[in-house]
Amino acid sequence: MTSFSVGLLGHGTVGAAFHDLLESRADAIAATTGQRPEISGVLTRSRGEFEDILERSDLVVEVIGGIDPARDYILRALRAGKHVVTANKALLSQHGEEIYDAARAGGAQLRFEAAVGGVVPVIRVIHETLAAAHIDRVHGIVNGTTNFILSQMAATGASYEEALAEAQRLGYAESDPSDDVNGRDAAAKMAILARLAFNARVGLDDVQYEGIERLTADDIAYAKELGLSLKLIGTAERRDGGLSVRVHPAFLYETHPLAAVNGSFNAVTIESPAITEITLSGPGAGGSQTASAVLGDVISSMIPPPTLPAPPEDVPIVSDVESGFYLHLQVADRPGVLAQIAEILGLQTASVKSVVQKGLGDDARLEIVVHPVLESKFLGAVEMISRLDFVRERPRVIRVIDEAFEAPATAG
Amino acid sequence: MTSFSVGLLGHGTVGAAFHDLLESRADAIAATTGQRPEISGVLTRSRGEFEDILERSDLVVEVIGGIDPARDYILRALRAGKHVVTANKALLSQHGEEIYDAARAGGAQLRFEAAVGGVVPVIRVIHETLAAAHIDRVHGIVNGTTNFILSQMAATGASYEEALAEAQRLGYAESDPSDDVNGRDAAAKMAILARLAFNARVGLDDVQYEGIERLTADDIAYAKELGLSLKLIGTAERRDGGLSVRVHPAFLYETHPLAAVNGSFNAVTIESPAITEITLSGPGAGGSQTASAVLGDVISSMIPPPTLPAPPEDVPIVSDVESGFYLHLQVADRPGVLAQIAEILGLQTASVKSVVQKGLGDDARLEIVVHPVLESKFLGAVEMISRLDFVRERPRVIRVIDEAFEAPATAG
Repeated sequence: MTSFSVGLLGHGTVGAAFHDLLESRADAIAATTGQRPEISGVLTRSRGEFEDILERSDLVVEVIGGIDPARDYILRALRAGKHVVTANKALLSQHGEEIYDAARAGGAQLRFEAAVGGVVPVIRVIHETLAAAHIDRVHGIVNGTTNFILSQMAATGASYEEALAEAQRLGYAESDPSDDVNGRDAAAKMAILARLAFNARVGLDDVQYEGIERLTADDIAYAKELGLSLKLIGTAERRDGGLSVRVHPAFLYETHPLAAVNGSFNAVTIESPAITEITLSGPGAGGSQTASAVLGDVISSMIPPPTLPAPPEDVPIVSDVESGFYLHLQVADRPGVLAQIAEILGLQTASVKSVVQKGLGDDARLEIVVHPVLESKFLGAVEMISRLDFVRERPRVIRVIDEAFEAPATAG
Repeated sequence: MTSFSVGLLGHGTVGAAFHDLLESRADAIAATTGQRPEISGVLTRSRGEFEDILERSDLVVEVIGGIDPARDYILRALRAGKHVVTANKALLSQHGEEIYDAARAGGAQLRFEAAVGGVVPVIRVIHETLAAAHIDRVHGIVNGTTNFILSQMAATGASYEEALAEAQRLGYAESDPSDDVNGRDAAAKMAILARLAFNARVGLDDVQYEGIERLTADDIAYAKELGLSLKLIGTAERRDGGLSVRVHPAFLYETHPLAAVNGSFNAVTIESPAITEITLSGPGAGGSQTASAVLGDVISSMIPPPTLPAPPEDVPIVSDVESGFYLHLQVADRPGVLAQIAEILGLQTASVKSVVQKGLGDDARLEIVVHPVLESKFLGAVEMISRLDFVRERPRVIRVIDEAFEAPATAG
């Protein structure tokens, strides 16, 4: 098998996470692409030599960030015909045309999904899915730090300063959060999206931006009264024969697809007459998420994307799985009923998460939610319960899907 | 310029919408791809001859639906080395392997983004963005009809029968809605997603499914009490060394990314350790949306997806645009204050959408939301208002983004 050499520029949080991810997925990637990805060299301030790494690489991953020296490295790589994958939003928003020109001149691929939206594949969707669409508008929550701060303020009534401190404590904000909270980071990302969505020369200087530093807990409280939620929103849209690109705090009505995006998540809504709108959301850029987006770009550079599924592997289909359940019972309202039901559930390993009991004259209504349990066990319990003499009508069962982020392996 | 010939099999709602869309976007596609797409022939029950159309086509679009004769046409096209784009979920979920094998044997591309999720690009994201990821689970609301019915029941307290009738009246449900409401349509889509996400042989027969016909308004009302919302959820996940793929009504906690997906929308959440999760949402499959997804696939078949932006066009940047605004004022609580403020807003063409006034001892707090108005006009009004003697502190201004779906052209 041939190898595919990846030069890694930068070895901070993202670089290190990418290095690990590449190594852990190398076998799977080799099976899919027929080429085994390998790190041909790592450049940091204290080790490696750029020319040397470039020469030994098919593709260069740039995760140094900032303008210099990233700009020089990327230009030299592209002009040498080497593919580049970068997460550098500052650079693309300020020197995008120079870099795109260099890629065109060198006949090299340039990919930068990780520069905007964390794991949210907004670049690809604009470039590929919507290649045929006339995009009217892009709205985005593209800075996870500010969205976390505003979500905290809304949820707890905290002041801006308190919420920022909490974000710093949890690692969602840097010790110098200026470029996040003043809107500049979001502005850079909106410039990149606008450049793609409208095929127009848009750079960071064309974006009006305003941050969240002056917002007060009062503003958020008043907003709630009006049924609005407050977000730092980037907007890029066709207006009056031109384009407007801007970032500012804005109130959203409850029905807006971005209104429910909370915490450090990113989300983008793309509007076009033919499709109405698409909304994409996911965690903002942590090291592991950015590394995953970078690796997706590396793989896309290795082979054309598949157009059909690979021949299938043999994987058994499992039919009896664990799930949370809701059980609705109408029972005679007499002592000992709940104890008897709980006993049967317990025998069948179903653990009760919540119970609501309501009186209905001589009867009572029970709504029980149980933690994840094997379906066959739970339905066995329901069958037994349905035969008890105090049960008035056929029990009703509906599955309950647990909170997000619960890994399947730990269900139960 | 060379042309790219597209044979169109089927000319119902989707086929006709695709035909129109292709013609209206042909110039733009030609500019991007260097090839002009043209319809080489249309096959319906009453006109056209398949062999003849196939011979004259570079690519065949199949939007007939159902198993026969679509299966035969697609197999013949692929074996002849012609690319195929299809929206046929029934066919792919029941005869997928035969069709994928034929594409492999013929060396042809097969694309089917439109088969699942309406405009939501879930196939592409699984295939490309997540090529490197190990997907653990896919949750989806993949049937717009049932999601509309459940949303109606939740919003209005309507019975299943009433909500279904409303869906039929509005065109969200067919006169025979069986395959939607019994879960079979969603099961077919989940089979296709599971096949891709886990690279496993999963067909419609492997999916356990249950519909929404037996749900009652009571179930939904109880759910609300528990902070849950009821959806028809498709789940495909790794479980116990195998896979489980199923569709059933399920309660979601408020924090689940699919809990807020209402109306005829589709949405899919994909979970993987490296990315945590991505959620994609958009309108379910109407004719225009499906046609747009089909056209996206046609363009992807014409040329490899771009890896960098095209050279930019000249588009002016507009800096003074219309927006809704929220204005917070603290004023002396005396007669005539609101009238004077309203007059200034009116002079500057800002039309008031809502006002909340609250007493604060001698003062009053005013929260005013105005309809979209040119920013310069509104800020001019605020400047004038701030100079009035009864205004106690600096007015606070925050933009308001209007409900979704409002086209920029009609803003205001």
